[in-house]
Amino acid sequence: MEPAISTTLITPVILSGGSGTRLWPLSRSRKPKQLLALTGEHTMLQMTAARCIDRARFGPGIIVTNALHAQEIAVQLTEDRPAAIILEPAGRNTAPAIAIAALESAPGAPLLVMPSDHVIEDCPAFIAAIERAMPLVEAGWLVTFGIAPDKPETGYGYIRRGGEVAPGVHKVDAFIEKPDLERAQAYLADGNYSWNGGIFLFRADAYIAALERFEPDMLAAVRASLEGAAREGAMIIPAAEAFLSSKSESIDYAVMERAEQVAVVPVEMGWSDVGSWDALHMLGKPDAAANVIQGDVVAIDTRGCLIRSEGPVVTAAGVEDLIIVATRDAVMILPRGSSQDVKKIVEALKARGHPTLDIPF
Amino acid sequence: MEPAISTTLITPVILSGGSGTRLWPLSRSRKPKQLLALTGEHTMLQMTAARCIDRARFGPGIIVTNALHAQEIAVQLTEDRPAAIILEPAGRNTAPAIAIAALESAPGAPLLVMPSDHVIEDCPAFIAAIERAMPLVEAGWLVTFGIAPDKPETGYGYIRRGGEVAPGVHKVDAFIEKPDLERAQAYLADGNYSWNGGIFLFRADAYIAALERFEPDMLAAVRASLEGAAREGAMIIPAAEAFLSSKSESIDYAVMERAEQVAVVPVEMGWSDVGSWDALHMLGKPDAAANVIQGDVVAIDTRGCLIRSEGPVVTAAGVEDLIIVATRDAVMILPRGSSQDVKKIVEALKARGHPTLDIPF
Repeated sequence: MEPAISTTLITPVILSGGSGTRLWPLSRSRKPKQLLALTGEHTMLQMTAARCIDRARFGPGIIVTNALHAQEIAVQLTEDRPAAIILEPAGRNTAPAIAIAALESAPGAPLLVMPSDHVIEDCPAFIAAIERAMPLVEAGWLVTFGIAPDKPETGYGYIRRGGEVAPGVHKVDAFIEKPDLERAQAYLADGNYSWNGGIFLFRADAYIAALERFEPDMLAAVRASLEGAAREGAMIIPAAEAFLSSKSESIDYAVMERAEQVAVVPVEMGWSDVGSWDALHMLGKPDAAANVIQGDVVAIDTRGCLIRSEGPVVTAAGVEDLIIVATRDAVMILPRGSSQDVKKIVEALKARGHPTLDIPF
Repeated sequence: MEPAISTTLITPVILSGGSGTRLWPLSRSRKPKQLLALTGEHTMLQMTAARCIDRARFGPGIIVTNALHAQEIAVQLTEDRPAAIILEPAGRNTAPAIAIAALESAPGAPLLVMPSDHVIEDCPAFIAAIERAMPLVEAGWLVTFGIAPDKPETGYGYIRRGGEVAPGVHKVDAFIEKPDLERAQAYLADGNYSWNGGIFLFRADAYIAALERFEPDMLAAVRASLEGAAREGAMIIPAAEAFLSSKSESIDYAVMERAEQVAVVPVEMGWSDVGSWDALHMLGKPDAAANVIQGDVVAIDTRGCLIRSEGPVVTAAGVEDLIIVATRDAVMILPRGSSQDVKKIVEALKARGHPTLDIPF
């Protein structure tokens, strides 16, 4: 018999593996996006943890992260201590990461798997969607949350809804890879598609059973890595060789697209993956001249800009539609709408072996 | 009898009183333009002193400056020690500043008065112009150098040439205040006008005699300030109360526009007062994309920009015709052609009491 608590309290599983550079010069390999306070006083990780603060519904969380960030995570979550911080020896994508969390949980525990670096502005809508999903989750379904699309985005995967299997919950008809613009426009017009936001809810044992069926070698590798794990306080360090013998695969490919009892809960909750400086401009509070400004900034006759300083005073006069970000050691200027060009800058800095990519500002 | 040396060796008099903010964030009240290496390895002051390096023609110089900058000046000129560094208790414009230098010089010494923060790219042309002027200077004329205008600049005073009084030297017909654009265009088309670049050559006694006639109170005040001066090594600190009792007046108003034996030597010598970031863009060596870049900079798909860093790495992608300047504590972004808007930024920073105006970066 499982302890009763495991079937009523949901375990948040926060995936903090990213070390993206799309928000350079703020995000660095040693201080990635989820560890930054991008949209307010709290970091993305802290805000993710805070969504599950209701102790009548959620138990302590499990964080899966890169060893580089363990110390910072422990500091950021001192007021909301996780049950476990699992330090991946190296990233193997989401399927093995979630497998560790599932194996460390009570079998019947519902796991709410969340990326650590997304914004959800309407948290009550998210919680309500979780409640709609719970009866199916307890019955062993694998549930994903479908974000209501508001533009024909080509950077996300889509989920096509099938018939309703519970109030507000649909069987997944298909997971669809990132589409081209034409197909994305058709999905948006159709109304029967959601974005795949990478948020999942299922019982630990349901996930393990699916892995056992579709990816037994992966499950064996993760099990072996936990048998040889080092443990210190809440920190768990899986044995490196065993863990690295797992293939690198997303939960979508490994499980969700192949299992049968897979449901989607469509939800409008002010979601954003904060994937670019342009996204941050959209999320920010614009002033009368449509500027989103943070830090020590002087903007004169300036319109439609995102200007952010983490150190030097940043001054601008007579400019329009620019993204300007400054730290103590780096400054970046791009036209608004071109924030994907951060990649080009990061590549150029890599080619020079420039230290600002690694060192936290 | 004057010592023979004073009539053959010219004394450079370098006016280093400016503390402009037109090149903020590089120029600061404690580190003004003349003390910065803006166009190459050497500072504007060092390059000004270096123009008079020929010891067969020039004696040691006299620097007139603000006490704030004395130490830095002494350091910058260690290899080219001036005869005197005169520390003005407060700025009283150029006429009293030059009067101190004149009173500290042998009466017959020709004084070459120069701002410390101008560029002269063709130094041989400048020296040749000085040689053309010398016979008249020795005869007691006050000589100014007329910069060949290459655009209808409304920010400078103009000089209208009269008849030739020596080969390549003309009597001044009139000094003309900063004109409006229409008149500036007419002057440029006329061909008989030069810009007044604020460079002068005259015997010390000729200048003193002119002051005695036109501004006797000023001369008396400066004389009194020198009688009560403190002296330490090459440093001369005129008595403050006496010096401050002088009116504040330019040499143009006080002397040049009123004296009779005033000549102009027209000269084309690649002159610039480096009065703005736009001027620095014009002076710099552009790359294939018309960018002028200095310091740790990554510029991708970027055209026609001035990008300068004195500290952080400055990165840009997909921008055009911007001026981007960064120091450790400040960043400034303006459209090229709008560099006069630095004033607006500096005013806004003053209103905030922002420290970056004063502290050298």
